Amino acid sequence: MYTLYYSPGSASMLVHLLLLEIGAPHELRRVDLDAGAQRDPAYLRLNPGGVVPTLLVDGAPCWETAALALLLAERHPEAGLAPPPNSAARAHYLQWMLYLANSLQPAFRWWFYPEAEGAEADIVLAAARRRIEAAWDRLAAQLAAGGPYLLGERCSVVDLYATMLMRWSRKMPRPATEWPQLAALAGRVKARPSWQRLYAIEGLTEWA
Amino acid sequence: MYTLYYSPGSASMLVHLLLLEIGAPHELRRVDLDAGAQRDPAYLRLNPGGVVPTLLVDGAPCWETAALALLLAERHPEAGLAPPPNSAARAHYLQWMLYLANSLQPAFRWWFYPEAEGAEADIVLAAARRRIEAAWDRLAAQLAAGGPYLLGERCSVVDLYATMLMRWSRKMPRPATEWPQLAALAGRVKARPSWQRLYAIEGLTEWA
Ligand SMILES: N[C@@H](CCC(=O)N[C@@H](CS)C(=O)NCC(=O)O)C(=O)O
Ligand SMILES: N[C@@H](CCC(=O)N[C@@H](CS)C(=O)NCC(=O)O)C(=O)O
Repeated sequence: MYTLYYSPGSASMLVHLLLLEIGAPHELRRVDLDAGAQRDPAYLRLNPGGVVPTLLVDGAPCWETAALALLLAERHPEAGLAPPPNSAARAHYLQWMLYLANSLQPAFRWWFYPEAEGAEADIVLAAARRRIEAAWDRLAAQLAAGGPYLLGERCSVVDLYATMLMRWSRKMPRPATEWPQLAALAGRVKARPSWQRLYAIEGLTEWA
Repeated sequence: MYTLYYSPGSASMLVHLLLLEIGAPHELRRVDLDAGAQRDPAYLRLNPGGVVPTLLVDGAPCWETAALALLLAERHPEAGLAPPPNSAARAHYLQWMLYLANSLQPAFRWWFYPEAEGAEADIVLAAARRRIEAAWDRLAAQLAAGGPYLLGERCSVVDLYATMLMRWSRKMPRPATEWPQLAALAGRVKARPSWQRLYAIEGLTEWA
């Protein structure tokens, strides 16, 4: 049994998507980020960083989006969302998960939370934007060389993660979907029942 | 059989340390970052990001420091460097690995490679520094609550990763070792035979 603390369209989306893909029973608790609920003392006891997602796994609070994704894929191998340990594709699975977690997602954190004002914020935003666009180049090259999914023939956690991040670029000067290979991948992921159910449950409308 | 493309003291250090901890046979190939060897076409074919580390696993090139660390711990469970899948500690292991990979290591990338000049670089550096110091606060709080290692009683990959990152702060205005809990952890990891052998093999002298 899982309980997910989430906010619509935020990083919790990947974890929510996986729970739906897996078909794992779960409860949802919405954290109102606009109201600052992520900084309530009770929430900070679950997640000292004051961010979503937090997932209660057998009652214990766990966080970090990509860690939760790796964990759910590992606990539910029957969902077939990740190459199993000791398979030939395992290293590439971990490589691309960590590429997203180490290069692309952090640049979005700087983009959405420059933690600076005025001209200083503009400089941080420009730096973040360069790194985000460089990552789209890299992912598009990978898809061109070995698509249609990031690990090849089969959809995996990596594609769900990449598509959530692509969605975050929708209001940027150059959204990810300007890269044709990325637009094609996003189209495939958005057609999945899990994505559509998540939109209905979280009440999302943009980038539908 | 593993082949590690490395540069002394760089992110490859974590992978090298794990190979020594595990006792896995491996070859080392030095990449001369000062000479720009990471941008040689032959190296870019192995690692399109032009960074170290790259690890050849059964001949196939794999990258991303944290991914390689997860992979080696998973392929060599007998080394006892990570809680096994389905153990109660697994979620925390993944959580802290990803905290380092998603929050702390990326801030160091901005610190060492601001990709800007003059006053703009200073703004990026200041932003990176704030994020790095916030991460030391978080890690020190975790050690105070549940040390002496980041996962509790036992040394794991997380501690080796954190100590490599602490080493990178040695010339910063406030190095990680100004946090007493972090200094204590670094002392424990630096006393390990693997750390000392790595220093000898890579020819490191600073922060000994
Ligand atoms: N490293 C964290 C970052 C999560 C994160 O940045 N979440 C954002 C939403 S996408 C958040 O909670 N923001 C609220 C805030 O920072 O106050 C993870 O991957 O889980
Ligand atoms: N996301 C990569 C980053 C690796 C990285 O930044 N490596 C640095 C050394 S610590 C590098 O190769 N720098 C050379 C360059 O960027 O030209 C990983 O974790 O492996």
